[in-house]
Amino acid sequence: MFTDINLSKERPAYLQIKEYIKHMISKGMLQEGQKLPSTRELSVILHVSRNTVIEAYNCLKDEGFIDIVNGKGTFVMFKAVNCMEACNIKWQKRISSEARLADQLDIMKHGITYKKGMISFTSIAPDEKYFDLDNLKRAFLDRIPLEGKKILNYGYAKGYRPLMRYLLKYMESKGLDTDGKDILVTNGFTEGFDLVLSALCDKGQKVVCENPTHNTAIKIFKLHGLDTIGVRLDSDGMNLDELSKALSENDVRLAYLIPSYHNPTGIVMPPEKRAEILTVFGKYNLPVIEDGFNEELRYSGSHVAPLIACNGKGNNVIYIGSFSKILFPGLRVGWVIGDKSLISYMESLKRSRNIHTSAFDQALLYQYLNEGNFERYIKKVRKIYKEKYQLAISCTKESIPCKNISGEGGLHIFIELDRNIDSRIVLEQCYKKGVVFTPGDIFYTDNTGKNTLRIGFSRVENEDIIKGIKIIGEVIRKLLVQGVYSQ
Amino acid sequence: MFTDINLSKERPAYLQIKEYIKHMISKGMLQEGQKLPSTRELSVILHVSRNTVIEAYNCLKDEGFIDIVNGKGTFVMFKAVNCMEACNIKWQKRISSEARLADQLDIMKHGITYKKGMISFTSIAPDEKYFDLDNLKRAFLDRIPLEGKKILNYGYAKGYRPLMRYLLKYMESKGLDTDGKDILVTNGFTEGFDLVLSALCDKGQKVVCENPTHNTAIKIFKLHGLDTIGVRLDSDGMNLDELSKALSENDVRLAYLIPSYHNPTGIVMPPEKRAEILTVFGKYNLPVIEDGFNEELRYSGSHVAPLIACNGKGNNVIYIGSFSKILFPGLRVGWVIGDKSLISYMESLKRSRNIHTSAFDQALLYQYLNEGNFERYIKKVRKIYKEKYQLAISCTKESIPCKNISGEGGLHIFIELDRNIDSRIVLEQCYKKGVVFTPGDIFYTDNTGKNTLRIGFSRVENEDIIKGIKIIGEVIRKLLVQGVYSQ
Repeated sequence: MFTDINLSKERPAYLQIKEYIKHMISKGMLQEGQKLPSTRELSVILHVSRNTVIEAYNCLKDEGFIDIVNGKGTFVMFKAVNCMEACNIKWQKRISSEARLADQLDIMKHGITYKKGMISFTSIAPDEKYFDLDNLKRAFLDRIPLEGKKILNYGYAKGYRPLMRYLLKYMESKGLDTDGKDILVTNGFTEGFDLVLSALCDKGQKVVCENPTHNTAIKIFKLHGLDTIGVRLDSDGMNLDELSKALSENDVRLAYLIPSYHNPTGIVMPPEKRAEILTVFGKYNLPVIEDGFNEELRYSGSHVAPLIACNGKGNNVIYIGSFSKILFPGLRVGWVIGDKSLISYMESLKRSRNIHTSAFDQALLYQYLNEGNFERYIKKVRKIYKEKYQLAISCTKESIPCKNISGEGGLHIFIELDRNIDSRIVLEQCYKKGVVFTPGDIFYTDNTGKNTLRIGFSRVENEDIIKGIKIIGEVIRKLLVQGVYSQ
Repeated sequence: MFTDINLSKERPAYLQIKEYIKHMISKGMLQEGQKLPSTRELSVILHVSRNTVIEAYNCLKDEGFIDIVNGKGTFVMFKAVNCMEACNIKWQKRISSEARLADQLDIMKHGITYKKGMISFTSIAPDEKYFDLDNLKRAFLDRIPLEGKKILNYGYAKGYRPLMRYLLKYMESKGLDTDGKDILVTNGFTEGFDLVLSALCDKGQKVVCENPTHNTAIKIFKLHGLDTIGVRLDSDGMNLDELSKALSENDVRLAYLIPSYHNPTGIVMPPEKRAEILTVFGKYNLPVIEDGFNEELRYSGSHVAPLIACNGKGNNVIYIGSFSKILFPGLRVGWVIGDKSLISYMESLKRSRNIHTSAFDQALLYQYLNEGNFERYIKKVRKIYKEKYQLAISCTKESIPCKNISGEGGLHIFIELDRNIDSRIVLEQCYKKGVVFTPGDIFYTDNTGKNTLRIGFSRVENEDIIKGIKIIGEVIRKLLVQGVYSQ
């Protein structure tokens, strides 16, 4: 005993000695009443100073593991208790239907596995290389002296007030009438979406969305037991006739839309279409969840206002925003803006789920934003991602035989292949050549879209964009020649 | 126009000018095609440098709000779109049954309101005054250069790996056999608890817990539609006869326990009782959620191992831990340890709810913990809270006529009054005298406990502990004399 401690330099030695002895006692290797070596003896065995051992023993005493009897020595005072009959549960059989479904729908578990060195077009996360660490550090050092202790204690379920005010003003500058509206800060878009569904839907109800749409949204709809009606996308957004038909024939509970840089198609719905679609939703008195996904990543053309800002005094649009999609995904901060009375219910749901979003992250983000760093960062990365976007578009046009390429901004483009080509077969063959992308079928609500794929370019170097898209093109051309069509 | 901008010093002036103009355009106050003042003119109107205006205009151009035509001037290029027929939803009528219940059970909304200057015994959060900000700052400055950019991008649903390893070792030192176990990092205890219930329970099933128990747990049980069977607490934990009876007569899905510093009673279940109770649960093959609440706040006596560490090779205990209860609540970091196969399902649930817990907070916490700061902090605050605890106990003994005082550590004590005294009446009268506490009935599963109350002392100054408890005592004495019993 004691000879097998490996003291690491990264953690105080006295703590490592304490933990070792604690572990021995807990496991019953050192028994109640047993005498420990003297501090002098142990310091010799471990090649540490005697003070280090004294400190370790004092800690163990504080924690109730040993007793130090003056003049007599140090004794173990804890008795390990062990329940004799080990109970072994077969967990597979105990799992709820929701968890079973979550596991089944989890593409991180069941998708293809990326291997080091591959060219991966699967991610639409920002490239961390461009993160603005210096100003985040400055924001931290600026905020901590102001109210460091406060932001480390419990905060409010709705959010950190200065950030809430900032975000409301931010939305106001996009034309939102904040009168009667309120905001809830969430752990990113995903939590915001989950909470809106929890607030408004009961199992078995119907919802409409674009087809294709964000695959996480499809997953969460399913986990809420909702019946999803996908409405076909035209090149300017939802097909209005199909939408009207769906709404007139079904008792629909709410709609979900990604009006700008739609995931996966990258389509931006034009202003006039926004007014038209809002009129249709208004006619059916329908709540609309607007996904503000990457709205800031506009590369050309004039600004397009979010639906919630085109909705005048209407209160049926619920906007979910997130800086974490482009700024700092690791911080997990998003927000929901909607009618005050709805947000009040969502506040209670949020409190019951996780009390509130990290007050520390919210304060840090507020400080960073308020100092004007987001605008500077966006200016920088817009240039970089625009170049990548243009490169991806031109490479695709050159190399991939396809029916359609869409994407007007953002961090990805969407490709529709010959209707007989199955992108999963393309993926299988590209994988062997070290290239992966996202097969488009996961974005469809009705098992279609087998001939589509999404290319996320944000984290791929320019030379790999060229190389990777070329390989995808070669695979597709070969399949077309061989006549190997869908499975 | 332009004369009503109030430029704040806290945010770059060019951004404030940009936002003002953006707002004017979005609102239609500046119309498409309209000419803006020249940069020279606007700089004079606003008393800012011309460069500031140029920067603002360049931003507006980047965002697609204006067009700068050389030699001709600057023109608005955005047309505000407004859906004419405002849709007004009566949200109250659309709210799901879950959200309605969450609102109804939200004690933050429906409890008594604290007013400034009052003595409040309602909180059991740590006093932020003692937070160790200097070392957190150091941890930040140590971690950021190592992998700042990585921890600001997306992380893994299960958690930040170095923190996961740290926590597993931490639990090992408490005697846990980590073989076959895995860990999931959550947004504090509350999310961990919610996820375990989601993974294991379907609506309408039965669960057992201590009566009284943590009120948030009761709330979440109700929100999951579970039928809660509360088992009476003896002075050493659950009454085993009542527990056995409950388990034999009902199809119980799982049990929830707070074995150390039980909330609200403060009871610590002795080691022998832990073995006994595990044997009962084992007999029924029952999953047990162990709430590791404030386990570190032991003031005297020998260490007591958590249930999961007494459970040998058994796999039925699911331990939920949290440093956020005592260290930094604002960071929202907790964890769940349990059988690997269970954690795998919970990982997918976690991913579907909010992707993962802030990687940034996890990395920061890891660095702080690994540098040995938690042990130093606990040593310091244990001394402070122990004094407050002893003061609260002695004041209560002196001033409050009661049947029982319980609490062997932690940040609160629990008082049982004469069975005819309603603590809500006591609270009402204390409120008038500027003192508030938590009425005990909210911790009971069966509408009993009307004659109990919880005193949280962690954020109350010593002189106010003395003063506040004296006032509570006076109110109770008066009620006893007047014979004003329960309503």
